[in-house]
Amino acid sequence: MIVLALTLAAAAQAAPLPSDPIAADWRAIPDDEIMIVTLRGGRAVVVRLAARFAPEHVANIRTLARAHWWDEASVYRVQDNWVAQWGDVTERKPLPAGVTEHPAAEYQGTPFAVAQRLRKADAYSAASGITADGWPMASDGATGWLTHCYASVGVARDATTTGSGAELYTVIGTPARRLDRNYTVVGRIVEGMAYMSAMPRSAAKMGFYAEAAERTPIVSVRLAADLPAALRPHFEYRSPDTPRFAALIARAERPDPPTVASGGVDVCAVPLEVRRAR
Amino acid sequence: MIVLALTLAAAAQAAPLPSDPIAADWRAIPDDEIMIVTLRGGRAVVVRLAARFAPEHVANIRTLARAHWWDEASVYRVQDNWVAQWGDVTERKPLPAGVTEHPAAEYQGTPFAVAQRLRKADAYSAASGITADGWPMASDGATGWLTHCYASVGVARDATTTGSGAELYTVIGTPARRLDRNYTVVGRIVEGMAYMSAMPRSAAKMGFYAEAAERTPIVSVRLAADLPAALRPHFEYRSPDTPRFAALIARAERPDPPTVASGGVDVCAVPLEVRRAR
Repeated sequence: MIVLALTLAAAAQAAPLPSDPIAADWRAIPDDEIMIVTLRGGRAVVVRLAARFAPEHVANIRTLARAHWWDEASVYRVQDNWVAQWGDVTERKPLPAGVTEHPAAEYQGTPFAVAQRLRKADAYSAASGITADGWPMASDGATGWLTHCYASVGVARDATTTGSGAELYTVIGTPARRLDRNYTVVGRIVEGMAYMSAMPRSAAKMGFYAEAAERTPIVSVRLAADLPAALRPHFEYRSPDTPRFAALIARAERPDPPTVASGGVDVCAVPLEVRRAR
Repeated sequence: MIVLALTLAAAAQAAPLPSDPIAADWRAIPDDEIMIVTLRGGRAVVVRLAARFAPEHVANIRTLARAHWWDEASVYRVQDNWVAQWGDVTERKPLPAGVTEHPAAEYQGTPFAVAQRLRKADAYSAASGITADGWPMASDGATGWLTHCYASVGVARDATTTGSGAELYTVIGTPARRLDRNYTVVGRIVEGMAYMSAMPRSAAKMGFYAEAAERTPIVSVRLAADLPAALRPHFEYRSPDTPRFAALIARAERPDPPTVASGGVDVCAVPLEVRRAR
């Protein structure tokens, strides 16, 4: 079969490779850092929240979820090669008590501490890598920030203030790296991304659907921690802080011939695996 | 309205900016470098062919289009954050006379000649930029190659040979840069990309649809040059070889405060405009 010989994952064959994870490489994600956005039809989009990088924004988001604030919301904007965005399209719905309308900017100033530093720089930063807890990060040499990669979740805002977190977007195309240090990254979609990425694009201005019927209704948004124990899913991430992960990156940089080695890998092209706990 | 303050295009206001194109910046694309892939429902996906970079592959593709070879084909693979791929899923359909089954590899060795060289390197190359005729290109310092960006069209092949061009893919997520210098880029989708990018993703292995009914039928594939004159669309590209285009790149690298300047822009994030001739 003629195929596009592919993906790092596809390289995992029967015999273990140096880049294959072992059982101990999987670490639990706290249940209050997992948010489940259920779309019409029961389609679940699971967001891992970046609580330690954007604590004020994530506190808002937890309050919004616990108030069931998004239960009448929708995905109201889908712009090709840019973002899908959801929340309250009217922007008239009052925020629940306890939500800070304009939290501190949390998109820069984080210490740059990575478990795997990438070999080569990119157009947007002096250094980049993957943190020990599995987030893509870049740095200007002084401080670090979470990068806008495919499936990253960020906080929409107007031109001059921060956003509450009520309006969120995810990147559905080329990494939106010029939003780095300008918009706060609060998480990453770790399951169900295809429900967002395959939504019909809007040709209207900036991808806001012109007709209400085009929007995708949101049924509910809940933290895993708030679900009944019997229904609560648990997730775990593959730790980057291992020689296996280093081998994964090396495979991308220096694959077997006849494939030409790139000598590097972009921070947004490193596969960050998350799975349901077994 | 809280929005994600955005796109370079959105920055074009009523008063002309230094980054706005003038009429003379638009240059005609030859009609035999425009290929129209019509999907079920009359949805037209328009591919600009990279004839001067991949002449043998493009010759094959023209022969396939003129033989109406793809008229019973389909989009049979859609893998999230990777590619949509089309052609003859059975791989048993004989190729028409005049098609070279394994043309020369045409994915490296091109002189690196760009109208706009980007300031900063990326993880996959020592230099990158945009050619005078509007293609994204990278270089290792010696030779250059067309890059795999969002909407790039490449030739699928098996592990050890080149592909004829009968099976094509387009990038629907993060730029697939590790395919650079490994797979031949033969074009770029310049209109109708959203029809490809919004297709339902397959969860089956490597994104090949498990069921035939999931595939999207292709109605026809034609070169614009082969259509009756009265029906023939004409396209033009915005020339990068202008001070206006340099200003466009500068805006991305050093936007107005309070937006934080990135100091660079990725070769796959430079907007390459193509429009119907007026």
